[in-house]
Amino acid sequence: MKNQHTPAYAWLHRQQERLHRLDHLQSIAAWDQATHMPPGGNDARSAALAELATLMHRDRADPSLAQRLAAARQEPLNDWQAANLREIERAWQRTQAVPEALVERRTVVTSQCEHAWRSQRPRNDWAGFAANLREVLALVRQEAHHLGDALGLSPYDALLDHYEPGMRSVDVARLFGNLRQWLPALIRQVQARQAREDVLPLVGPFPLPAQRSVCEQMVRWLGFDFAHGRLDVSTHPFTGGVPEDVRLTTRFRDDECLQALLGTIHETGHGRYEQNLPREWLGQPVALARSMAIHESQSLFFEMQLAAHPGFARHLSPLLVQAFGDQAAFEPDNLHKLMTRVAPGLIRVEADELTYPAHIVLRFEIERALIEGEAEVDDIPALWDAAMHDLLGLDTRSNYRDGPMQDVHWPAGLFGYFPCYSLGAMYAAQWMAAMHHTLPDVDAQIHAGELNGVFGWLREHIWQAGSRWPTDELAQRASGETLNPAHYRAHLERRYGG
Amino acid sequence: MKNQHTPAYAWLHRQQERLHRLDHLQSIAAWDQATHMPPGGNDARSAALAELATLMHRDRADPSLAQRLAAARQEPLNDWQAANLREIERAWQRTQAVPEALVERRTVVTSQCEHAWRSQRPRNDWAGFAANLREVLALVRQEAHHLGDALGLSPYDALLDHYEPGMRSVDVARLFGNLRQWLPALIRQVQARQAREDVLPLVGPFPLPAQRSVCEQMVRWLGFDFAHGRLDVSTHPFTGGVPEDVRLTTRFRDDECLQALLGTIHETGHGRYEQNLPREWLGQPVALARSMAIHESQSLFFEMQLAAHPGFARHLSPLLVQAFGDQAAFEPDNLHKLMTRVAPGLIRVEADELTYPAHIVLRFEIERALIEGEAEVDDIPALWDAAMHDLLGLDTRSNYRDGPMQDVHWPAGLFGYFPCYSLGAMYAAQWMAAMHHTLPDVDAQIHAGELNGVFGWLREHIWQAGSRWPTDELAQRASGETLNPAHYRAHLERRYGG
Repeated sequence: MKNQHTPAYAWLHRQQERLHRLDHLQSIAAWDQATHMPPGGNDARSAALAELATLMHRDRADPSLAQRLAAARQEPLNDWQAANLREIERAWQRTQAVPEALVERRTVVTSQCEHAWRSQRPRNDWAGFAANLREVLALVRQEAHHLGDALGLSPYDALLDHYEPGMRSVDVARLFGNLRQWLPALIRQVQARQAREDVLPLVGPFPLPAQRSVCEQMVRWLGFDFAHGRLDVSTHPFTGGVPEDVRLTTRFRDDECLQALLGTIHETGHGRYEQNLPREWLGQPVALARSMAIHESQSLFFEMQLAAHPGFARHLSPLLVQAFGDQAAFEPDNLHKLMTRVAPGLIRVEADELTYPAHIVLRFEIERALIEGEAEVDDIPALWDAAMHDLLGLDTRSNYRDGPMQDVHWPAGLFGYFPCYSLGAMYAAQWMAAMHHTLPDVDAQIHAGELNGVFGWLREHIWQAGSRWPTDELAQRASGETLNPAHYRAHLERRYGG
Repeated sequence: MKNQHTPAYAWLHRQQERLHRLDHLQSIAAWDQATHMPPGGNDARSAALAELATLMHRDRADPSLAQRLAAARQEPLNDWQAANLREIERAWQRTQAVPEALVERRTVVTSQCEHAWRSQRPRNDWAGFAANLREVLALVRQEAHHLGDALGLSPYDALLDHYEPGMRSVDVARLFGNLRQWLPALIRQVQARQAREDVLPLVGPFPLPAQRSVCEQMVRWLGFDFAHGRLDVSTHPFTGGVPEDVRLTTRFRDDECLQALLGTIHETGHGRYEQNLPREWLGQPVALARSMAIHESQSLFFEMQLAAHPGFARHLSPLLVQAFGDQAAFEPDNLHKLMTRVAPGLIRVEADELTYPAHIVLRFEIERALIEGEAEVDDIPALWDAAMHDLLGLDTRSNYRDGPMQDVHWPAGLFGYFPCYSLGAMYAAQWMAAMHHTLPDVDAQIHAGELNGVFGWLREHIWQAGSRWPTDELAQRASGETLNPAHYRAHLERRYGG
């Protein structure tokens, strides 16, 4: 890079590098908080993280930025630099759109709501929770209005755009509306068919050290680089750290062994994306993952397109036999059946591949209405119950704990994130469809355990691109078209039988 | 605290709180670097830590500080606030005495020297090491001159004063000169006597999970609070983290089991000091440990005054038998003999209680001469060899690896730290002597495993004081006198036989 001729851009580059390095310390401290920190350290840790966040916010809101961004736009930049500038500008527009006092108030109120939620949920205390959530919603609506005004978007779109740049709720509504038409019937058909199938259950217990060993072997086999990452345990699995040092987490229970393994494979998809972002641009926004849906497309590619592929169980089976001894349930066909078992349930994070999108459609519809002012907190239970009836045929009345109180997202102030899960599943199916064009024998490769072709495709088309292109262009370049939900439907119908 | 009437002090208070919180993130990231970080993460981590250090330095060097400190001195402050202001002022004087360019240059040069040292030491490459160390020394001398000018101290005293406020090299020289007179003869006597003793060696192997369990039990028994701390493994044991979340580390080898246990007990002393600093002042300099010698006095109290006490092996023995099965060497008297075995050796960190101070005396004499310009890097090997001959009767010629290249301190630019180890041992003996006045049956209590009296004394006199008083006043209040080396000599002669 020749920054000597581009002083405004060079200044921005250095600022982003500084922010990236401080973000590194935040990521590691947050990872430690979830994995290793003793409980007595929590208050001091939260205060420390908030202090650094304040410093970083001040840097991001530097009043000289408007001028520097304008000047940098006039400087000679190569394609990557121009893309980087676009991403810097995007972040800055959001930062300066919201008054600092509102950000601070929101941080306090969401933190209190989330904290209270942790004890309200087990008590099924909807009234207590709703009181707090009303406060959160009021502030998030304000924030969404500020952002919407600055970005020329509707309030909900302004929130969605943070996680999924360029995506609009009208598109999500169309995609999800389509899903609503065929998904419930498909679920019923599959349930009826699977009711007649013989599936052998897993027979535990499955000792945790052996589960950990199986997971580590699988993560390694899937190409995760342990010289630049770790696998640990946390209450809620996540992928944290930084691209140079990716921290995967998982969780174990000793009566089951597939959940931890599939969860770990899911996080490995996130992890390989992070580890393979464009290294020469690390520290700059252009080297960040493109969006949350694209991130989920990687974890769900690993979990659903690879691990739940009919050819993959052959590779899991010997690992499980070696770790836990032989049992009939470990036979590959049976393992595959276990991994593709469909059973409507109340809890999103326990849902199977086919019923999962129903949970997302429901949340999207409700949270969009909440942010756009078409619904209030008190309307949530009825909306929830109606959608669960329509989509999964389940009754949720009075069960707030396993209904609208089950997720951390809303109490934490995260609105606009939920759609990314199912958009990611759609993208993952689209990548697999595209792969079949350049790797016609990809199914045979997966059967044979030859995954280099698959990883090479992902590296070239997704990982190495970082945020070089807007999402639609990334999808176009990778698969010849923007998001096309037909691939997802075809995938589900092929796998679960139409 | 009524900060509303003390605006300058209140500003300083808030600044220190901010620095403490950022320091929290540095401590945890540094702990992670030494315990969990995969090797590929090192460059990014070092860059992140350096970035935050730069931000913190800028805050500490805020040009408005001179005026604020002067104003705060005029404000009504209680005793703790006044002590806090004294400590803030002390740190600021040091910060503003050294030009920022010199600090940055020193950071780069010491980092390079330390990095090169890691591969030069195994190769015994004195010439290569000396070339780098000359550069380090030149910069540290400059820094020491700047500090000395600002503080009215000799260059070496200016460095020593950082770790041991108020201590001067003339005092250290007197204390260590006295040691030099009686220590070599005592070592020879003890060696001759111990040569005739029967001591049963430990018979390994000692599986690491069992060692870890013994260490955890011991740490807990010694009162360390695992709700506010952890015990992990690192290459070089240390105590890190923050008072609210203290991170002890240790290391294990499977052919031995006492080294890890005693090392862990040593770190527990550091840890309990940190965990029991005055909680209502946490985040302010007045709540920091008084000095490095006082810190070492706590770790060495736990290791030498407690664990190596003749009555303590009774409490170790059953733990070891339970973990590794019975063996004759675990008999309490034999354990005590093993823990008090004297054998002059080349390596400081492997030295026993009696020969350890010889290593420190030698380093102090050499580093003082280096900083004061009375010796050069090329003189070190001859000075080292002469002192090792006089003090321990050992020949070190041509063995640089196990001579002046054995410690990380000088390549890392740490001059003025070494004396604290032996000053700490002296203070530890003084605390035990003082304890005998208020707890006349302290020996019987240790035999009985009743340690609450001991811990209560340390809590009241050392831990809870933080940096409330200058070191001499702390010692005076705790033991009725300032540092008096007679207690240390008496302790060694009593334990090892005069």
